[in-house]
Amino acid sequence: MFVPGLIERKRDGGALTPDEWRGLLSEYAAGRVPDYQLAALLMAGFLQGFTREEAAALLDGMMGEGARLDWAGLGRPVVDKHSTGGVGDKVSLVLAPLVAACGVAVPMMSGRGLGHTGGTLDKLESIPGFRTGLSLAETRAQMERIGCVLIGQTPEIAPVDKKLYALRDVTATVESIPLIAASIMSKKLSEGLHGLVLDVKLGSGAFITDPARSRELAEVMIALGEDRGCPTVALLTAMDRPLGRACGNALEVEESIAALRGEGPEDLLEVTMAEAVEMLLLAGRDAREARRDLDTALSSGRALDMLREIIEAQDGNPAVVDDPAILPQAALVEVFAAPRAGTVLQVEPRAIGRAVVQMGGGRQTVDDVVDPTVGFVISARPGQRVERGEPLASIYARDEAGLRIAEDALGRAIRFGEGAAKALPLVVARISANGYETL
Amino acid sequence: MFVPGLIERKRDGGALTPDEWRGLLSEYAAGRVPDYQLAALLMAGFLQGFTREEAAALLDGMMGEGARLDWAGLGRPVVDKHSTGGVGDKVSLVLAPLVAACGVAVPMMSGRGLGHTGGTLDKLESIPGFRTGLSLAETRAQMERIGCVLIGQTPEIAPVDKKLYALRDVTATVESIPLIAASIMSKKLSEGLHGLVLDVKLGSGAFITDPARSRELAEVMIALGEDRGCPTVALLTAMDRPLGRACGNALEVEESIAALRGEGPEDLLEVTMAEAVEMLLLAGRDAREARRDLDTALSSGRALDMLREIIEAQDGNPAVVDDPAILPQAALVEVFAAPRAGTVLQVEPRAIGRAVVQMGGGRQTVDDVVDPTVGFVISARPGQRVERGEPLASIYARDEAGLRIAEDALGRAIRFGEGAAKALPLVVARISANGYETL
Repeated sequence: MFVPGLIERKRDGGALTPDEWRGLLSEYAAGRVPDYQLAALLMAGFLQGFTREEAAALLDGMMGEGARLDWAGLGRPVVDKHSTGGVGDKVSLVLAPLVAACGVAVPMMSGRGLGHTGGTLDKLESIPGFRTGLSLAETRAQMERIGCVLIGQTPEIAPVDKKLYALRDVTATVESIPLIAASIMSKKLSEGLHGLVLDVKLGSGAFITDPARSRELAEVMIALGEDRGCPTVALLTAMDRPLGRACGNALEVEESIAALRGEGPEDLLEVTMAEAVEMLLLAGRDAREARRDLDTALSSGRALDMLREIIEAQDGNPAVVDDPAILPQAALVEVFAAPRAGTVLQVEPRAIGRAVVQMGGGRQTVDDVVDPTVGFVISARPGQRVERGEPLASIYARDEAGLRIAEDALGRAIRFGEGAAKALPLVVARISANGYETL
Repeated sequence: MFVPGLIERKRDGGALTPDEWRGLLSEYAAGRVPDYQLAALLMAGFLQGFTREEAAALLDGMMGEGARLDWAGLGRPVVDKHSTGGVGDKVSLVLAPLVAACGVAVPMMSGRGLGHTGGTLDKLESIPGFRTGLSLAETRAQMERIGCVLIGQTPEIAPVDKKLYALRDVTATVESIPLIAASIMSKKLSEGLHGLVLDVKLGSGAFITDPARSRELAEVMIALGEDRGCPTVALLTAMDRPLGRACGNALEVEESIAALRGEGPEDLLEVTMAEAVEMLLLAGRDAREARRDLDTALSSGRALDMLREIIEAQDGNPAVVDDPAILPQAALVEVFAAPRAGTVLQVEPRAIGRAVVQMGGGRQTVDDVVDPTVGFVISARPGQRVERGEPLASIYARDEAGLRIAEDALGRAIRFGEGAAKALPLVVARISANGYETL
């Protein structure tokens, strides 16, 4: 394989064959093709594009010789969800136990906070003792016993994606739709799913802020999933404001527990239910059965019980479900009051997400330790009419510097005016192999 | 310095500031920025372009902390030539002693064969004993004593260019005009010149085959040279056929010696004289003086004596100048006869150059040892009317396989027909700071 020739072809707008991609990524994984050649090739592809056929070959190459989970004998359909990430997006924490409580197995592998967004693993680890690093054997055993795991990507899953992602992260080659799609799907297809729901975020808090590109990302991922035998459905959901009220790791766990008790917040429940219905449809239920089963799982407390079981199985303190005060608590709490009267036009999520990171709730370098206590609970909602001095949010900080960061961020994020607030519908559209439908 | 941010800006079509380029390349040289980030950045720049200001900053960065030769006290003007490379292009071997014999010092640093083109160092090393790797002290001493060196790039010269070029070579980021221009000029400006002549090749045997891009390359190099205080002139010359008759290392040395004796070939002498005149103009002579001095240096034998002195000074066997049979000789020699009667329309140089490499006269991998004996002496000329069976070339090979490669290449390279041959003028145009003039 003459790698400079492959780079040159991509650079000049050509495509690599599936065999070339698979061979190249296999050599890369084995350390026989150096990082710098992949970096040049990925940048050429970033700028010149990848065909759909190349995206599929990239997917295969990223899965590499990695493990593919096999649920034969489990006796239950196995379905998962992936979110492109947002601010206050704790859907996974509510959704996984809820769907598992309905008898559909959920082997949920999540990630850590990235950029301005939070990560499910960081949130879970704010639960005292909770262990996200299960082995494949532990994963299998827990799936058989309770039908749900909430874990990180194991080293055996999509190892080439892991190596490649680390390279893309430091060479400005992350935000290419075919690369993102192949990377996400390499992990999800390794889970051996019977179906996959994608939550693709729209708006300024999403990674991809151009709605046409978000839709394209969803369509590429659906094509990849369907082509590899995994029925895949995407919901495009609102990330033009934080989802729910809590933003920050422990605060989001607390809000998720409240949601599983049926205590809202409403927007979080609505998005979670929409995704849960899709997961149950992929598991073979019809829409009426799905809604009924989900309502029962919530109202009976079975969904909350499932979260308790998962926490216990993964060495966390299950008492947190009944007493969220067990979660680590912030040193300082302060109310943020409306600086003026008026209508809230916008609660801009990216500024909020960045502030959580800067307050210590995310990583600015890979070595940073995440502080689970910090963040916001924001009651202000677009369209809300407020008086000057009315409380709009609570700030949870570890020190005065964090409070200042938080106040500054809220001051910029919460925009007032006299016009009508423009907010996206919570669930904007549904995309499947059959096409796009606005909801 | 946040390198992914710089890569991202270049990727999105922006420019880096001169300080950013210099800082980045300095960190790269120190090993604190890894190859893969430079590879991604250079590919982004390859596709998005570099501004003239960026080319100048790249030039400075490539020179890095490297040595800059200083000829104060030498008492002679110091001028050099650079060629973008071609097939049969042995101009340097004739030009350097010729100009030095006219009292203008020539510190000529050359390269090795690259792709389908030959390299001056490989040609020189076919002279028994000849040493191209002089130290800076040896270079200085020889320049003072005889006013000319024919050497390779010393490790002290443009060290960052050296490191970067090796990376570009394996990441398909060589053929970017600003990168080529900055790389060439980083070496030439390190030579501390009073003037520089560029020989930019046009035609299918050139590295850049698009004439508009060749002109652009010349213009960027001239701007860089003038801006850094080195008057620079370019000649655009024909590389739509081999220059001279010999192609191959020892064969070209033999032909160069013949040219210094005034025994042709005519095209080689014409291009060499055109470049020599430009070098003498840059050294302060007027055109009439220049032609007269050059004619005298040739006819008096002083130019040939200068070559003898250079060879002796660099540990080569000077007897080669009087008895070229001392040069290594090919095992097999065969005549290639015209397969049909007709007019020679073209002698395509790239096929010839590739054949020399494949016969062992160049490197297909960095570890290959160059065979100095192999190559061609081609008498066929575009426009020439030939009979079937008439000798068109001699093939010099080390084995039967080499003969077959050579026959096949000549069969493809020498094209016959009944129309008129279309060949470029030997010197197409002259470009200086004052503009472009067709010659």
